[in-house]
Amino acid sequence: MSKILTNRKDDYAQWYNDIVLKAGLADYSAVKGCMVIKPHGYALWEHMRDELDKRFKETGHQNAYFPLFIPKSFLSKEAAHVEGFAKECAVVTHYRLKNDPNGGGVIVDPDAKLEEELIVRPTSETIIWNTYKDWIQSYRDLPLLINQWANVVRWEMRTRLFLRTTEFLWQEGHTAHATRDEAIEETKKMLEVYATFAEEFMALPVVRGVKTANERFAGAEDTYCIEALMQDGKALQAGTSHFLGQNFAKAFEVTFQDKDNKREFVWATSWGVSTRLVGALVMAHSDDEGLVLPPKLAPLQVVIVPIFNKDPEAKAKINNLAAELMATFKQNGVRAKFDDDDNTRPGFKFAEYELKGVPVRITLGARDMENNVAEVARRDTKEKESITLDKLATHAMQLLTDIQSNMFQKALQFRNENTTRVDTWDDFVRVLDEKAGFVSAHWDGTPETEEKIKELTKATIRCIPLNNEQEEGKCVLTGKPSKERVLFARAY
Amino acid sequence: MSKILTNRKDDYAQWYNDIVLKAGLADYSAVKGCMVIKPHGYALWEHMRDELDKRFKETGHQNAYFPLFIPKSFLSKEAAHVEGFAKECAVVTHYRLKNDPNGGGVIVDPDAKLEEELIVRPTSETIIWNTYKDWIQSYRDLPLLINQWANVVRWEMRTRLFLRTTEFLWQEGHTAHATRDEAIEETKKMLEVYATFAEEFMALPVVRGVKTANERFAGAEDTYCIEALMQDGKALQAGTSHFLGQNFAKAFEVTFQDKDNKREFVWATSWGVSTRLVGALVMAHSDDEGLVLPPKLAPLQVVIVPIFNKDPEAKAKINNLAAELMATFKQNGVRAKFDDDDNTRPGFKFAEYELKGVPVRITLGARDMENNVAEVARRDTKEKESITLDKLATHAMQLLTDIQSNMFQKALQFRNENTTRVDTWDDFVRVLDEKAGFVSAHWDGTPETEEKIKELTKATIRCIPLNNEQEEGKCVLTGKPSKERVLFARAY
Repeated sequence: MSKILTNRKDDYAQWYNDIVLKAGLADYSAVKGCMVIKPHGYALWEHMRDELDKRFKETGHQNAYFPLFIPKSFLSKEAAHVEGFAKECAVVTHYRLKNDPNGGGVIVDPDAKLEEELIVRPTSETIIWNTYKDWIQSYRDLPLLINQWANVVRWEMRTRLFLRTTEFLWQEGHTAHATRDEAIEETKKMLEVYATFAEEFMALPVVRGVKTANERFAGAEDTYCIEALMQDGKALQAGTSHFLGQNFAKAFEVTFQDKDNKREFVWATSWGVSTRLVGALVMAHSDDEGLVLPPKLAPLQVVIVPIFNKDPEAKAKINNLAAELMATFKQNGVRAKFDDDDNTRPGFKFAEYELKGVPVRITLGARDMENNVAEVARRDTKEKESITLDKLATHAMQLLTDIQSNMFQKALQFRNENTTRVDTWDDFVRVLDEKAGFVSAHWDGTPETEEKIKELTKATIRCIPLNNEQEEGKCVLTGKPSKERVLFARAY
Repeated sequence: MSKILTNRKDDYAQWYNDIVLKAGLADYSAVKGCMVIKPHGYALWEHMRDELDKRFKETGHQNAYFPLFIPKSFLSKEAAHVEGFAKECAVVTHYRLKNDPNGGGVIVDPDAKLEEELIVRPTSETIIWNTYKDWIQSYRDLPLLINQWANVVRWEMRTRLFLRTTEFLWQEGHTAHATRDEAIEETKKMLEVYATFAEEFMALPVVRGVKTANERFAGAEDTYCIEALMQDGKALQAGTSHFLGQNFAKAFEVTFQDKDNKREFVWATSWGVSTRLVGALVMAHSDDEGLVLPPKLAPLQVVIVPIFNKDPEAKAKINNLAAELMATFKQNGVRAKFDDDDNTRPGFKFAEYELKGVPVRITLGARDMENNVAEVARRDTKEKESITLDKLATHAMQLLTDIQSNMFQKALQFRNENTTRVDTWDDFVRVLDEKAGFVSAHWDGTPETEEKIKELTKATIRCIPLNNEQEEGKCVLTGKPSKERVLFARAY
């Protein structure tokens, strides 16, 4: 079997691209910076979406949908927001094409110029708070707990499939509250929803933390985040939850009458995760043979591959057993497939399902079956076992549970091994260069030092972990006093 | 209780708008022609999407996602397509904003002009077939059965909530086949998926038919459609399925090697339904008190409203029974809610749930309960019955089935009563003006006559029904010979 992918250790970036393209997750498109999400990649996103959506609804949120376009003037209304978002945007200036009078196809009709340009949403705070103005009158209208599943566009110069694309899919929650405390509680609650989703469902351990002022969302008072570690030792921000204070309420004049008949500005949060999570999933778990998918997220959890010989009786036995297994799996909600395609050799199928990350493979061979056994292979460790036929289904289902937990433990161990406490500048630079991973170090708390460290090492403060241990120390760069360590890393 | 909605007979259009706004389905937005889909409206769309998605997957389709933007030149590649779609489009010409040097907020950066303008997709045939070129090499890659859930933009001058908006949500299936017959079979199969979905799930009877050349999708060889009749006697196209021949394969040079090693152009279909279906649902079933929702589609199927009195013992009894009912409903997959909000009067709740279309309401009152009964009201007929307590749950669940089938039967009867065979021009005009509905009449088969009839009466040929009875006759306008009747109507 020839090697399908570049090895991680030879070229991690190329390995990632190889996997995304060859496992059928995504493809480049004719539009610069935009990708095509292929069926296997979209199925992963669908599973993430469905699970998150369930968790959002369980915490009282409802879905809605707001316009793709935002009037240009809206972006200017919140001072910090405009700095952060009114930059690299797709701008709609015209609303009609016409046939080129010179016969050169279609051209933009100069008579169809918009009075005010429309921006393709890079995020929806402005259009949503402009709407909330009409929806919120009284404390009885609060809290307003709304989420949107949508596409957004941020014009990116350097793009990478899933990790940074001009258009991406995401969800954005936008909630409105009567008090500051309630809004902060919501911000933290949704961060925890993201964190438990990442850990329980994606088998991805994350650090829960809060961003420094430099890294805050444009328009937020505080940005909470979950940060994950990839196999090359770089960090990846996997989700953010923002406490927006009253900034957007003030910008869009959204007030409510409280119980004492006083008018107050509304408190806000917003929170989002995106198709970037698919990239995180690949980078955190996969190997040189292809994707390794956590069973809870795998579109296909178990595949049954027959090794047919020419004996029709043996073939019938295999088919019968496969049908039995498929029935059991269906009954137990296991996503399984019996791949009895005669035109493809088993070895080719093995490689294909490995590439696509199917957690469990059962091979039904005539000779094995005479001995009342079949081979069961798990994708995460590539271990194979010979299992007696009557235990096949239960064994496979137990494996799904084991793989889910093993993948999380493995990633957690990796993160622990790659989180290094350092106390000197030399160690800081050396660890970043030689080992990478998270570097836990003291920092003097100033944006200037943070900026300087980034300039010197390309490392940023990923977060100040929540419930952080308080400890006297000295800033790793300036030597000034510090009360806690923060997490640095180079990041995607 | 004051009247919330305009009556249908007084002003049908206003009644429709009232319902959409006041039942919380949608709202106008700050962007001309774009709507905000509010939680109740979005929940309806979600239920439609989930059910359709299940049916698409059962018929072998996979989801994927293609870019929002289409290079302008792509639209010109298919001659008929460009005529139909390269007109009222949102055009992205720039990719950056900057601060106005004169302090007037943000302006479009003139230095950030795109070399080639991008069109916000009005439909995705072109970008998808440009991608299929890379995905299809051999007959082994076929059929390719892909669907996309997405937003699209068609710049509309006159918009109506859900029925015609500049941006709308939809799904678009795009499939590729090795033979003409297989593609035609797919086109018809997906039409039938739409038709059974509309009838079984939305309780909306539809006529399955094929469009005349005039009404065909731009770039299709044949457009199949389902047509529904609204309560005001106007028709509404509820879904279309197109046989595209080899038009897009030729425009984008998509060929495959067949089993005999010959290169052939690929055959194509596309098919779609949109958030317009929410409008159809409202217009087909609802009444002067509000929405009437088919139970299979209703986000909330049963609501339990308590009538509390001050006796704590009676209140406890009501709460216990409600808890029991809720448990039974949950166990049976019924979407139910116990509305024990003390701050709202029962009468207000009744009106609110009627407005929102909840199919079944159970009222638990202390006095009724002493007599071992409770009142159960069905939304469709507004009948109320007194039911003994131990039969409440089963009765409510039986009602859900009855309402679903009753709503379909009622709509079917309405359509039958409002489908009129006419054989003279006078009758044709008179029926359209006095009775409306579908008019079944002979037509000479020419686009000119069709155009003339539209000019004279505003009626269009909605479709030539599938499996149409063949019958000698004379065109209702020209008197020329005809072999079958077609369905005319004024339409949304």
